[in-house]
Amino acid sequence: MSFNTFGHLFRVTTFGESHGPALGCVVDGCPPKIPLTVEEIQRDLDRRRPGQSRFTTQRQEADQVKILSGVMDTDRGQVTTGTPIALMIENTDQRSKDYSEIKDKFRPGHADFTYEAKYGLRDYRGGGRSSARETAARVAAGAIARKIIPDVRVRGALVQMGPHKIDRAMWDWNEVGHNPFFCPDKAKAAFFEEYLDDIRKKGSSIGAVIEVVAEGVPAGLGAPIYGKLDSDLASALMSINAVKGVEIGAGFGAAELHGEDNADEMRMGNNGPVFLSNHAGGILGGISTGQAVVARFAVKPTSSILTPRRTIDKSGTDTDIMTKGRHDPCVGIRAVPVGEAMMACVIADHLLRHRGQVG
Amino acid sequence: MSFNTFGHLFRVTTFGESHGPALGCVVDGCPPKIPLTVEEIQRDLDRRRPGQSRFTTQRQEADQVKILSGVMDTDRGQVTTGTPIALMIENTDQRSKDYSEIKDKFRPGHADFTYEAKYGLRDYRGGGRSSARETAARVAAGAIARKIIPDVRVRGALVQMGPHKIDRAMWDWNEVGHNPFFCPDKAKAAFFEEYLDDIRKKGSSIGAVIEVVAEGVPAGLGAPIYGKLDSDLASALMSINAVKGVEIGAGFGAAELHGEDNADEMRMGNNGPVFLSNHAGGILGGISTGQAVVARFAVKPTSSILTPRRTIDKSGTDTDIMTKGRHDPCVGIRAVPVGEAMMACVIADHLLRHRGQVG
Amino acid sequence: MSFNTFGHLFRVTTFGESHGPALGCVVDGCPPKIPLTVEEIQRDLDRRRPGQSRFTTQRQEADQVKILSGVMDTDRGQVTTGTPIALMIENTDQRSKDYSEIKDKFRPGHADFTYEAKYGLRDYRGGGRSSARETAARVAAGAIARKIIPDVRVRGALVQMGPHKIDRAMWDWNEVGHNPFFCPDKAKAAFFEEYLDDIRKKGSSIGAVIEVVAEGVPAGLGAPIYGKLDSDLASALMSINAVKGVEIGAGFGAAELHGEDNADEMRMGNNGPVFLSNHAGGILGGISTGQAVVARFAVKPTSSILTPRRTIDKSGTDTDIMTKGRHDPCVGIRAVPVGEAMMACVIADHLLRHRGQVG
Amino acid sequence: MSFNTFGHLFRVTTFGESHGPALGCVVDGCPPKIPLTVEEIQRDLDRRRPGQSRFTTQRQEADQVKILSGVMDTDRGQVTTGTPIALMIENTDQRSKDYSEIKDKFRPGHADFTYEAKYGLRDYRGGGRSSARETAARVAAGAIARKIIPDVRVRGALVQMGPHKIDRAMWDWNEVGHNPFFCPDKAKAAFFEEYLDDIRKKGSSIGAVIEVVAEGVPAGLGAPIYGKLDSDLASALMSINAVKGVEIGAGFGAAELHGEDNADEMRMGNNGPVFLSNHAGGILGGISTGQAVVARFAVKPTSSILTPRRTIDKSGTDTDIMTKGRHDPCVGIRAVPVGEAMMACVIADHLLRHRGQVG
Repeated sequence: MSFNTFGHLFRVTTFGESHGPALGCVVDGCPPKIPLTVEEIQRDLDRRRPGQSRFTTQRQEADQVKILSGVMDTDRGQVTTGTPIALMIENTDQRSKDYSEIKDKFRPGHADFTYEAKYGLRDYRGGGRSSARETAARVAAGAIARKIIPDVRVRGALVQMGPHKIDRAMWDWNEVGHNPFFCPDKAKAAFFEEYLDDIRKKGSSIGAVIEVVAEGVPAGLGAPIYGKLDSDLASALMSINAVKGVEIGAGFGAAELHGEDNADEMRMGNNGPVFLSNHAGGILGGISTGQAVVARFAVKPTSSILTPRRTIDKSGTDTDIMTKGRHDPCVGIRAVPVGEAMMACVIADHLLRHRGQVG
Repeated sequence: MSFNTFGHLFRVTTFGESHGPALGCVVDGCPPKIPLTVEEIQRDLDRRRPGQSRFTTQRQEADQVKILSGVMDTDRGQVTTGTPIALMIENTDQRSKDYSEIKDKFRPGHADFTYEAKYGLRDYRGGGRSSARETAARVAAGAIARKIIPDVRVRGALVQMGPHKIDRAMWDWNEVGHNPFFCPDKAKAAFFEEYLDDIRKKGSSIGAVIEVVAEGVPAGLGAPIYGKLDSDLASALMSINAVKGVEIGAGFGAAELHGEDNADEMRMGNNGPVFLSNHAGGILGGISTGQAVVARFAVKPTSSILTPRRTIDKSGTDTDIMTKGRHDPCVGIRAVPVGEAMMACVIADHLLRHRGQVG
Repeated sequence: MSFNTFGHLFRVTTFGESHGPALGCVVDGCPPKIPLTVEEIQRDLDRRRPGQSRFTTQRQEADQVKILSGVMDTDRGQVTTGTPIALMIENTDQRSKDYSEIKDKFRPGHADFTYEAKYGLRDYRGGGRSSARETAARVAAGAIARKIIPDVRVRGALVQMGPHKIDRAMWDWNEVGHNPFFCPDKAKAAFFEEYLDDIRKKGSSIGAVIEVVAEGVPAGLGAPIYGKLDSDLASALMSINAVKGVEIGAGFGAAELHGEDNADEMRMGNNGPVFLSNHAGGILGGISTGQAVVARFAVKPTSSILTPRRTIDKSGTDTDIMTKGRHDPCVGIRAVPVGEAMMACVIADHLLRHRGQVG
Repeated sequence: MSFNTFGHLFRVTTFGESHGPALGCVVDGCPPKIPLTVEEIQRDLDRRRPGQSRFTTQRQEADQVKILSGVMDTDRGQVTTGTPIALMIENTDQRSKDYSEIKDKFRPGHADFTYEAKYGLRDYRGGGRSSARETAARVAAGAIARKIIPDVRVRGALVQMGPHKIDRAMWDWNEVGHNPFFCPDKAKAAFFEEYLDDIRKKGSSIGAVIEVVAEGVPAGLGAPIYGKLDSDLASALMSINAVKGVEIGAGFGAAELHGEDNADEMRMGNNGPVFLSNHAGGILGGISTGQAVVARFAVKPTSSILTPRRTIDKSGTDTDIMTKGRHDPCVGIRAVPVGEAMMACVIADHLLRHRGQVG
């Protein structure tokens, strides 16, 4: 919705900077009596956690989440109470780094300049509020969202790195957990290992495309006209750090299609209507069709690179900047669990909203 | 925001179906004392109006807008009062068409099936609420938004039809008004004339990509994290009928770039900071940079085509459907003024929001 | 919520001034397949319509409502479609009155001064947006709300005029429709006839207290902490023109009670829990108890009176003002159906919200 | 607004139960560069803290607040950054009390029954989310709100206990801090000491009326029609635990007045318009007049009393209950700083909203 809250009935408010005492979120509107343990949330956080391979930033954050409110013990274990669930992750790796280089200079491609332009000051430590670290709170919220939609399976994968796309014929969801890229194409994952090592060693970075798929979404979710499921997904995914594009189903490819080819034909199946293709990405008129909901988003390369770039400082003087420190050669990788979380949150919210209006 | 309202301080609520008595919108939160005439709104509506060339639907709608509230006469002419501005467009071309073909069958690629799945019934006349006719209300609202941001110039153009992209080196904004495609490349516009005629005669349709550019947007607009300017633009543009993808600046192209190439370097200019490129599309960290805000969106081909397609009917029986009637061979064309309107509304809203928080 | 919209899932946006072309509302989020006719809405509007007795303003407004969208004909009659229902009431009695007296002077007790202070201008014709005429749109929306909660009966009554309270032992709902005051105490209604005639003839006015009762509200509605049922009722009732106080159940009387007397004891009845009293007014902790929800609100006397009052004009000059014209000697009377409508809207919204979260 | 968030541009989301690890709030939309220290927040919290006299509950809570995010050190001291300010208060006095008495029984006058009816379970420890302990988070948020409106002075006072009203002629703001009742009438405070001691010793409780006054509010705040300043105040104050009524200015007394007496006449003063009385409580048409904003609210007596009351348990069996433990004989007392905080939050929000729309 606005500022630091998203969602309508299932609402998530996040807070916290990269280098303050803690970050976290308040999840409001969760139905009561949903089983929920801290371990379930931690599991998702661990998938996003940096420092697990040489392909993500070496910043070591334990990312241990605490549940501050909204759950209680019952005979059936710990469950939600229907009241706000506050989650907190304390920042532990706040090494007293030397920020003199970025304190007064604007890193090109970063939000340094725009935060300064908007607020008249900025928290330069680790990017402050614009740090990708904020996405940990989203992943935590997404873990709760998943519990609300147990019949929906939300999975993400990296499908492109730089100009290199995976071979979709080789898609194997089982591979996603077996390489450091969340890549469903085993051969391409092997290629990426070399490819990204080279980029990493050069102190450069590269962009990526992530695909998120939600299976089991019932037909009927989405609230036209300005609460369309795809509209809310676009907003949610575009809000992830470094994302520059979002598409649903055939996406930009649909611009090249004729009407005959784009329309997903229907036949009656044994268990209801069956679509013969899914160019729509599971959404028509902003409402889910019952097919898999498919979204992709483009992640730009991080601008924290070793090559010096031209910039200015706060006093308006021309200068150069080179960003040392621990960074992701391909920030798209860790965006996979974040994209899943946002998809889960949007679907959970729409399930509640649909139930509210239609019963 | 939700359901049929978008925007936060500059809020637009639209209503109306294709074939009811009227459609329109309520624009709330408009600052007072803004000069506003019905002619200014009508001018934008006329750009979107169908039936102006053989390349858009031949449905004849006068699209005459009436202002029902929110303005008053003063010595300086008619101005806004700060109270809700209600706009109404009466439906005039409701010919008593034979809807028996689509009343019970679901048109593939349309929202027929999903509205039925969601609500348990649907207004099949002209697509009901899912009709592109709803976008007239957006254009009317956008005309008001433009008056709030007089220093911002929002313009749109068709940059791709089917697989054919314009030559960006040939971009001439003056051409946009001189061909039926809102195309800024004169040569390509001539090509589209033949290309689309062929598609039209075959009873087929084709997709397109639209680009919207806002110049003069001050740095600092956008409210991180969940009210990012690009996040709200993505939501606004994705909510337009038939849109399947949205990108900002380099967009999906950013996935193929290295960090060195993607980061927009800066130098101090005579009138403040100057960026040496605009891969960011004028937005960093969800906040405007002061550069032109650039967004593109993909519009799928309409599924209302003469080629019969397989489908089912409400009783679950397999059948075929062929959509006769007046339709757009390339609905992307008329999406240009709609995209502009959504961009204008989002920027106006963010201007007010920024002023509210930061002053 | 904000500006000219209230409600969360059942959302009402109103528009229009006293003397523009039309006023009305957009009702969003209404469940689909609810039977709804224009006559049902008109019936409620007619109860609020002025000019039906000598005790309300003699302004003659037909208040004929039109449904512009959101309904469709089916085999079972006209029903809602789940899309926005736009209602319009055209202003017909816009006699070209002489407004020179109030154009530049601020009427004490009116919103003249504050609208001018806020917006820098004001629509002085008939009070513009601050006119009680806006409440017609609320009553129309309330008629739709009632259809969503068919098992809830919302009724209002005038329980005090000036210092004269009704005898609650004499409460007879049947009397409410048989006197021009919506008064449930027959004897007191007879008294009010003389009492108010005297006030009316003197060109004075008097305040009143209205009580609204909703029976059949299921236990469990209301969303703590900031969407409490009583909190939303307070907001909704306080937003009615001229209202200066709202109370629930024992209300301000609760301040005088000891804990033993205020707590509503419980016993198990044949059909579930039974409360032995209702000091809580049917709401505990912001959530409905299943008892009747009882709210009262105080309506100040209109300041449009024949006695000259001291004021200033726009140029800051001291002056006097006497408001001639057609006005209500007791505006509280017509607030009865308005209060009912607001109660119905709030309960309908909370029913949908509760269903959304809890199912 | 909804659920656990209130406010529009200055938005407060609270979380936490009486007996979980912590409670707190996220304050979103705060302007940047506002000086803010933890001590300023703590000062307000200390005024609300229980256990400071024998007239409030003896529960010992340190109520030490921590700032988790949203501030940064600068040359001018610690200031807000414009990003969400998260505040946390850890629960320290969670003595392992015996809850067997209330675990299965519904305390009359409490939210036990309604939470159970709504959610199907309830956190019975200390009242869970319905505990007055949640108001600590409001007071913390209010301390931030005060910093946004430095020219506005918000003060509250207890003006009635049981049937005993203060003598308004004896009003002395300086007295408020010198007695345990926040009472501005020194003589009445002395009386309350004996009066409440008697009630306390009997294990009974009593209601109260609180008045909150905001001086220095500029004319023009409030957003008609559904964001009226009085409407938002009513909602905010009614949301406080145990509140059953809210009134503005003359309030329910206005119902007894004639138009001549209720209208606040105006004269031109040296520094702008002057009102000759303030029956309106500083609000006309939902917009502030520039006079002091005056609101009162009624607080019911707590139902946690020693006298046994009839009730039922979860299995539907008739039983009795007597609430032992540490409770407030007059919960209205501690509602004073809470009422101030809500008033401050509402005014701060409206200041930002007004600035957003009108500039």
